[in-house]
Amino acid sequence: MQIINEPQNALNQAIQGIQWAYPNLTWVPHTLGCYDRNFQDDQVPLIAGGGSGHDPAHWGYVGTGMLTAAIMGQVFQPPTPQEIIKVTKQVTQQRRAFFIVKNFPADVAAFTAAQQQLQAEHWQTGLCIVADDISVDNASLKQRRRGVAGTILVHKILGAAAVQGASINELNQLASTLVANIHTIGVAASGAHIPGQATVSFTLNPGEIYYGIGIHGEPGYRREPFQSSELLAQELISKLHLNFQWHAGDHYAVFVNSLGGTTPMELMVFNNDVHELLTLAALEIDFNKVGTFLTSNGMHGLSLTLLKLADPAWLTALNQPVTTAAWPN
Amino acid sequence: MQIINEPQNALNQAIQGIQWAYPNLTWVPHTLGCYDRNFQDDQVPLIAGGGSGHDPAHWGYVGTGMLTAAIMGQVFQPPTPQEIIKVTKQVTQQRRAFFIVKNFPADVAAFTAAQQQLQAEHWQTGLCIVADDISVDNASLKQRRRGVAGTILVHKILGAAAVQGASINELNQLASTLVANIHTIGVAASGAHIPGQATVSFTLNPGEIYYGIGIHGEPGYRREPFQSSELLAQELISKLHLNFQWHAGDHYAVFVNSLGGTTPMELMVFNNDVHELLTLAALEIDFNKVGTFLTSNGMHGLSLTLLKLADPAWLTALNQPVTTAAWPN
Repeated sequence: MQIINEPQNALNQAIQGIQWAYPNLTWVPHTLGCYDRNFQDDQVPLIAGGGSGHDPAHWGYVGTGMLTAAIMGQVFQPPTPQEIIKVTKQVTQQRRAFFIVKNFPADVAAFTAAQQQLQAEHWQTGLCIVADDISVDNASLKQRRRGVAGTILVHKILGAAAVQGASINELNQLASTLVANIHTIGVAASGAHIPGQATVSFTLNPGEIYYGIGIHGEPGYRREPFQSSELLAQELISKLHLNFQWHAGDHYAVFVNSLGGTTPMELMVFNNDVHELLTLAALEIDFNKVGTFLTSNGMHGLSLTLLKLADPAWLTALNQPVTTAAWPN
Repeated sequence: MQIINEPQNALNQAIQGIQWAYPNLTWVPHTLGCYDRNFQDDQVPLIAGGGSGHDPAHWGYVGTGMLTAAIMGQVFQPPTPQEIIKVTKQVTQQRRAFFIVKNFPADVAAFTAAQQQLQAEHWQTGLCIVADDISVDNASLKQRRRGVAGTILVHKILGAAAVQGASINELNQLASTLVANIHTIGVAASGAHIPGQATVSFTLNPGEIYYGIGIHGEPGYRREPFQSSELLAQELISKLHLNFQWHAGDHYAVFVNSLGGTTPMELMVFNNDVHELLTLAALEIDFNKVGTFLTSNGMHGLSLTLLKLADPAWLTALNQPVTTAAWPN
């Protein structure tokens, strides 16, 4: 059961609720997109988007120092190219924009099409595809490379650069280095809810967890009975280690994200397990955030993102205060 | 299932997780209490507390401009008078303190005993008991007057006064006017989880909701099948109206709180229903926050708090930026 009215109206009514709570967001009619009312149009606007149902992503990151605009689609469906273009043209008179997209085929197709049309109209554009998920496909053993919670760190670090005047070329370069240094892996203890659908995205047995799931309820790589937060942290960190091949003394940011239905107590117990294991590996943890950043609409579970702080400027950027609904300064 | 390790260690491990994420909090050994590392001891320290399991309350509100310290006990159990005294004496050398307590008999007994012992040692102290819950007891029809989510607004407004130099007498006067203008009523769609206990605090039938529950899983006043967010808002607002007896043009703050297991989409749909109904009543809503502020460890449900803005200074105080983990500036 969900505390909503008619399921087909849930999304529009939620957006009306957001408008009451966050009057600094201006919503663009006939879209599910919004932008920062205080945007000065003297920097490259940063625009992100994707399906709804990932609250507080992405509207919660719109504000000075982070995103200029966020464009959502229906639940777990990206916006259309037309919606992306409509919002983008509302945001700026400067014919320039930089897009941050999570690596799902439909999302990439929509934003790429929008970018191409804007370029045809002589806009300067940049686009960065975040592909932080290191979960593997069981059949092919290939990495899925979906875009998940690490995207929020990309919002934050590119946001700090954009507000300081970075050009589209500079944002493109920063994004490509940054994205290569961010990996995420998630685990679920329940499926996700989609308003108006009786079934959740997948069903687990009681006490069962599912490693490597995606944020739309895509399958993971292994199911097993839950044993402890510590074993869960070990599994996720071992997968991250395979990707990072870190060395003692390397500097990292740790980002623990609830998929929507996880209590702060659970998140903090898990955060402690992560720190104990990374301390054993002699990593330097310079930055740590724990919270509900990019969800799968109420899914019980969490994701662990590590960012290798290859450039010390990234840490400064992470610590810059911003005025958004959902980033904790 | 909860993502923890041994249940008896969950609380201590969660606090270690908090320490990694929030190094500005100093934890006092042999207590579950913490204080703001940056506290200057040039203002009356504001100290709140109560049971654990209400995250992010109360540790999430420790920081400049809000609480100086928070003292938690075991899950749903208040701290002892000795723990309260120990933390208080660590915080300040000035022999003065102001306590904010939620109106539960065990909490009031513990903080009152601590206050009396400090007074016997020639401390100047103040104490405010928040009793915002307007739920009624089914048998006696008396209001329960428990202290619930409205407590966070008391932290915020007293915090703004304390940081500007208010004396204990001034804080006492402010608190008594303020508390009389705050009412809250909650509704649950599930019980609360207590680590290590298989049962939740109460069990509802599928699709059933329970009006007027407390934050420790205390019973409410009516169970019924859930119909819609709008009807739920109507019921809660009708109870609030009975207490406030508002008039067109009155100024209010609206505070929508997740009890822990409610998605942002649900909260925002409900927030919209609340605003539509209060707009019909011609109230002026000058302030609105929606989020996860004081929980019942994962309970699916929410509470609605209204604060009558009888003094315009309260709105200014609510809008003052603070540096805490959980208050959204």
